Amino acid sequence: MDLLQATIARIEPVDENARAAARARQDSLTKPPGSLGRLEELAVQVAAITGRATPTIEERLVFTFCGDHGVVAEGVSAFPGEVTPQMVRNFTQGGAAINVLARWAGARSVVVDVGVAVPLEDCPGVLPRKVRPGTANLAQGPALTRAEAVAALEVGIRTFAETWSGRPALLALGEMGIGNTTPAAAIAAAITGLPPAEVTGRGTGVDDARLAHKCAVIQRALDLNRPDASDGLDVLAKVGGLEIAAMAGAMLAGAAHRVPVVLDGFICGAAALVAAALAPRARDYFIAGHCSVEPGHRAVLAHLGLKPVVELDLRLGEGTGATLAIPIIDAACRLLAEMATFAEAGVASHE
Amino acid sequence: MDLLQATIARIEPVDENARAAARARQDSLTKPPGSLGRLEELAVQVAAITGRATPTIEERLVFTFCGDHGVVAEGVSAFPGEVTPQMVRNFTQGGAAINVLARWAGARSVVVDVGVAVPLEDCPGVLPRKVRPGTANLAQGPALTRAEAVAALEVGIRTFAETWSGRPALLALGEMGIGNTTPAAAIAAAITGLPPAEVTGRGTGVDDARLAHKCAVIQRALDLNRPDASDGLDVLAKVGGLEIAAMAGAMLAGAAHRVPVVLDGFICGAAALVAAALAPRARDYFIAGHCSVEPGHRAVLAHLGLKPVVELDLRLGEGTGATLAIPIIDAACRLLAEMATFAEAGVASHE
Repeated sequence: MDLLQATIARIEPVDENARAAARARQDSLTKPPGSLGRLEELAVQVAAITGRATPTIEERLVFTFCGDHGVVAEGVSAFPGEVTPQMVRNFTQGGAAINVLARWAGARSVVVDVGVAVPLEDCPGVLPRKVRPGTANLAQGPALTRAEAVAALEVGIRTFAETWSGRPALLALGEMGIGNTTPAAAIAAAITGLPPAEVTGRGTGVDDARLAHKCAVIQRALDLNRPDASDGLDVLAKVGGLEIAAMAGAMLAGAAHRVPVVLDGFICGAAALVAAALAPRARDYFIAGHCSVEPGHRAVLAHLGLKPVVELDLRLGEGTGATLAIPIIDAACRLLAEMATFAEAGVASHE
Repeated sequence: MDLLQATIARIEPVDENARAAARARQDSLTKPPGSLGRLEELAVQVAAITGRATPTIEERLVFTFCGDHGVVAEGVSAFPGEVTPQMVRNFTQGGAAINVLARWAGARSVVVDVGVAVPLEDCPGVLPRKVRPGTANLAQGPALTRAEAVAALEVGIRTFAETWSGRPALLALGEMGIGNTTPAAAIAAAITGLPPAEVTGRGTGVDDARLAHKCAVIQRALDLNRPDASDGLDVLAKVGGLEIAAMAGAMLAGAAHRVPVVLDGFICGAAALVAAALAPRARDYFIAGHCSVEPGHRAVLAHLGLKPVVELDLRLGEGTGATLAIPIIDAACRLLAEMATFAEAGVASHE
């Protein structure tokens, strides 16, 4: 059995006993029942994921997978393709938003080249895991072969294996890849069944004319490639991307090891659609870090049945929205673990 | 001039030059313009408040003002009045939600008895600033005299003066007081002009019958006391509370010293209405930490023109929602200060 199939096979249902124990403890703590709202739900979900009734977070990881996209030749992005490697270098110098937020969140930032178009051997601090130098143009044929899609998924799985210490952790995932809202929208349309116009947005900031063109390119890619919505790997190969595949692989690896997976924005959401298509149980291990202003993101989260932790109108990617949620998920777990019960504190319970 | 008037007189307009400089720097950083959404707005607001174009947060304070309410005799709360001092003791033992979140946020927690009904002299760790042992029943007459309301406002002002180091800070405010959603709703109705039914909710969890009774009590209090919406002190004295007054005073003190004031839930929002009625300029120094599920809170935030940082369905008080926002505001400031510019990083700007 290959690594991808072995990882999928290892994903178990979440632990309903731990969920029930966490829920019962929530109701014994010195607060009106339910008054911590989503923080109560988050801690209970982390309990179910980890199988620990009072979970702790001892390690925080954020992976930023980087790749280029042949479809930029169609003029779908406000930034030129050469910005992908420029931003990868920025990541290694600590000047990007994800660097600042990883430091803020106490998270280890891991930057992975899974498919940047140009060589990055001279760029220390980037894990060199290039499957191929950018995808093919999905408006003219499949973005990747099926074998390349599997290889990129396995980059994600291996990155988790190489990086995770084995301690209780949160895994935040993000990406960098000029043009990648286009494959993300194509994946979202293919898997949710929504028309491209409902899942396509301005990405880093295209104007109205460019947005209409982008929708047309996505429709053409779907008509030409005819991805099979019931086959996550087919969708990923035909209209996906290398960094999207690697995020999906890391999601499967996190789920297989009972580590909560914190999702970033729209592109990460598209990867989550692929991961959930490959392994439906994986979805229970996902926490939506935020909801982006990219219009397709809300549709993706609805399809996955996920509610975002924060809504701060971000549309940057890199893992920024996922990383912002890390301390809040940690706060939720700390409240469950550290608050006194009514009995311990000698406080009268409600009537 | 007394302390209250001197504090109000000291509140200056926020600094539009610092705002413009922060805004200009945002657009030079290595991200698509505006892509950090609300985080960009928050950092720019903190710049305007502090007068520093790249503000830093070096101190975090959370004040929890505690007081009791004569109106609990009307049966408006799901918890009995004796829970107020029990929860104050819980605060001093570190077992309450606000203790956990203050530790998590790296904030100094200050608990102030401004009007708990029973003596708390045996409770070290609580600042003893009792103005009177609970308010009078606002459904039968004024909750406080005008002099008591001023004294409680000045407790808030003095708590800030005694506690703040003078370094760049965030000030989060919260409260504990069984029954206090009733005066908060009365203040909200008086100042916004909305009917009590639109600003009254279940507080810590009353049922439908008790909710209808609570609305009727609030209407009776407004009919009886006839607070003057144009006079914040009149509203505060007639239908307010001691911890509400102290929060409003601390808000004025924060604004007077250019320290951003992070608001908690509905009761804190009612205090902000009073503070803004006393000193309209103070409002520009406020950041809404969260939006509570208590239905009046959204109306209060709309009246103040504030958007919440997080929406996590909290309804606990104590300062929990404000404290949750502290690290996010810090993240916003760090991004502004620490991200590389396009020029520094050698990244191509968009077209």
